[in-house]
Amino acid sequence: MDRTKIILNESEMPRRWYNIMADLKTPPMPVLHPGTLDPIGPEDLVPIFPMALIEQEVAQDRFIDIPNEIVEAYRLWRPTPLIRAKRLERALETPARIYFKHEGVSPTGSHKPNTAVAQAFYNAKEGVKRLTTETGAGQWGSALSFACSLFDLDCMVYMVKVSYEQKPYRKIMMQTWDADVVASPSMHTNSGREVLKNQPKTSGSLGIAISEAVEDAVASDNAKYSLGSVLNHVLLHQTVIGLEAKDQMETAGDYPDVVIGCVGGGSNFSGIAFPYIRDKLAGRNLRAVAVEPTACPTLTRGVFAYDFGDTAKLTPLLPMFTLGHSFVPPAIHAGGLRYHGGSPLLCDLVRKRLVEARAYDQTDVFDAALVFTRTEGILPAPESAHAIRAAIDEATDAKNQGEERVILFCLSGHGHFDLSAYHAYLQGQLEDAEFPDEALHRALEKLKGVSN
Amino acid sequence: MDRTKIILNESEMPRRWYNIMADLKTPPMPVLHPGTLDPIGPEDLVPIFPMALIEQEVAQDRFIDIPNEIVEAYRLWRPTPLIRAKRLERALETPARIYFKHEGVSPTGSHKPNTAVAQAFYNAKEGVKRLTTETGAGQWGSALSFACSLFDLDCMVYMVKVSYEQKPYRKIMMQTWDADVVASPSMHTNSGREVLKNQPKTSGSLGIAISEAVEDAVASDNAKYSLGSVLNHVLLHQTVIGLEAKDQMETAGDYPDVVIGCVGGGSNFSGIAFPYIRDKLAGRNLRAVAVEPTACPTLTRGVFAYDFGDTAKLTPLLPMFTLGHSFVPPAIHAGGLRYHGGSPLLCDLVRKRLVEARAYDQTDVFDAALVFTRTEGILPAPESAHAIRAAIDEATDAKNQGEERVILFCLSGHGHFDLSAYHAYLQGQLEDAEFPDEALHRALEKLKGVSN
Repeated sequence: MDRTKIILNESEMPRRWYNIMADLKTPPMPVLHPGTLDPIGPEDLVPIFPMALIEQEVAQDRFIDIPNEIVEAYRLWRPTPLIRAKRLERALETPARIYFKHEGVSPTGSHKPNTAVAQAFYNAKEGVKRLTTETGAGQWGSALSFACSLFDLDCMVYMVKVSYEQKPYRKIMMQTWDADVVASPSMHTNSGREVLKNQPKTSGSLGIAISEAVEDAVASDNAKYSLGSVLNHVLLHQTVIGLEAKDQMETAGDYPDVVIGCVGGGSNFSGIAFPYIRDKLAGRNLRAVAVEPTACPTLTRGVFAYDFGDTAKLTPLLPMFTLGHSFVPPAIHAGGLRYHGGSPLLCDLVRKRLVEARAYDQTDVFDAALVFTRTEGILPAPESAHAIRAAIDEATDAKNQGEERVILFCLSGHGHFDLSAYHAYLQGQLEDAEFPDEALHRALEKLKGVSN
Repeated sequence: MDRTKIILNESEMPRRWYNIMADLKTPPMPVLHPGTLDPIGPEDLVPIFPMALIEQEVAQDRFIDIPNEIVEAYRLWRPTPLIRAKRLERALETPARIYFKHEGVSPTGSHKPNTAVAQAFYNAKEGVKRLTTETGAGQWGSALSFACSLFDLDCMVYMVKVSYEQKPYRKIMMQTWDADVVASPSMHTNSGREVLKNQPKTSGSLGIAISEAVEDAVASDNAKYSLGSVLNHVLLHQTVIGLEAKDQMETAGDYPDVVIGCVGGGSNFSGIAFPYIRDKLAGRNLRAVAVEPTACPTLTRGVFAYDFGDTAKLTPLLPMFTLGHSFVPPAIHAGGLRYHGGSPLLCDLVRKRLVEARAYDQTDVFDAALVFTRTEGILPAPESAHAIRAAIDEATDAKNQGEERVILFCLSGHGHFDLSAYHAYLQGQLEDAEFPDEALHRALEKLKGVSN
């Protein structure tokens, strides 16, 4: 009987993260201070991040040691399984071999704790007592709540009001880890009070929640802010996914022809792909495919420009593919992929054609999710199902070409808190969000003024 | 760094289930036909179960081979991790070593697929095309839906109406595996129509749902019925938990002084404990603790008697501890533990003092669940939290006695679909269900007529 899962022992878990910066011939463009338009330096970040993370943000070392305390926390669920999707292969009648890395086995159900645990540790080590963050549907807020409970930090989560009210389960989950969760905009911050004064009935936004979390961290003693994607240090921490996967694929005796992940800010994709892109930079032949929703087609239809990371224009200027910081994507069920920009580091690799981007409609994505659930048994998060859609298409193409293609994708999380989306799909009520051309044009017009 | 998890390779997974019947000096009392009061024979079970399962129900062999097809299905998530709860130990400042077997990593989130997959396989092999079952909150219905999707069987789930309406997520989950789910009582069966005629507003009950599922199976061509606990063959399949755990504990260099599991019908407890009780029967010193809610204290306050397994008196007469088949336990959040009786095989071991029983109030159980979530990160099902409560009490007792006690418990499932219960607890709205003495007395009075 062939092996279904490749499982590493804890002793085989990576003890270093991989930093792709060391292998890029030319560095990505710098992040700029919006006032001076000079590259930002460590001193600009000190009010919001601990020094260890600021150092990782600009590090050039190829490998960075994972401290023992983080390794010990990872061991609560890592190494995660690499699974050969044999039943899916059989259903597709494909000669391709499909593997997936199952990050949904973490306590919060996604890859997010890989960085949350690291961030909580470094903050605690530097004497920080409290972390603040924002969350939309709740995946990131859950991960940081969990991580803070491990390192005895208080955790304050500003949760977008519409999610706070309509998706109570993630909120309750955060509370089981002892986090404070408030609906944003809140009365806790000046920015929240300001918004509530002008728009008392607002349902909130991620942009407002970021403003509140940052303001809270800056204004408080012993508090810092924490971000779940986009930044270099976040992508660095996520490379534990790809480093494990490489060892596991080697044990399986296979090497991927194509590595696939979904992209919102870019952290799970980068986590699985960067250790392989290192090989590609060294001449190895493989493709890395970043998958996004057609409703928020940052990499496939955005422009590469300096733009703000948030709608409230509080962040530095980031060099990235963007739909414009004022662009509000249509409501889709893969809430984690609704971001107007992307990680500058990942965007740099897309520009350099080291990563190819692809977009799918949401009904096509849910079609793939159901095929996967009924063969492999696991209910995927709608975000992760974008990667499944691409993997199925690659496997079908391999069949048509008569190729033994080896496909590896990241299953970034399970869909236990997305069942209302599945219900809509099963009832035939899922509509593909029209991508609004005009809205994009307007947002891109506004963008012109930003970096000139 | 000490190991946190002990993980087996797939090749180390058990290839045989353990049948404790082979090691009992005296067999349990027989199950009786309610009409004749004669022991029931295989012919009585043929209309509802396939022959392979009927044979397992009465088998005397010590080990029964697990067919390759079932091993392959198990490999989608098995072997499951054995985790040393080091953070919990530290929080309790106990010299005890606490281990738990994490069955929540299965696709449906509990131990139930261990038997669902086996039952689906044997039915498919004998040409059955469709399985029927009942489900309360949905754990068992999910497991059978998943298993049927693996073996290309249609699956019909009669879901108690109040759960169908108030807990839609489990229903949707079953539908993602392509099961038909109907609210019970339904118009699909005579028993359902009969109930609806007399009580059109009824919220249903597990007893009615069982009646519908059995009637449907018996009346249909190529359909059989499937049960998720209580029966010998179900407990047999679940021994894969304990067999794996024994190998893992051996790798860890430890042997448990006490093995703990929660008990509704008895399948997860028996699964982890029976392979150890085999050692106890051979003279080894260990305790096996079955934990139940004080609101439904079958083993701790019930009487041992012949009783029906269902409220509608459709089943054979089972020799078991019972609160009386007409007893309706108060509503508690551990819905899987609200059963008036228990597995006859497990009850026999309780009578023989090979298993000790213990009951906890639900607030004590949720206290333990939160301690666990905030140390080990995993949100447990309220059912499983009964085992956690007992493990914590054992660890505290070990501390008071100054003993290095080794504690092993079964984490039968995660609590992702139980967050409203956690919400009630966090809000201080959780009340301990009063155990109604009078109701018990009335139910036990009725019982007197049954087996005389």
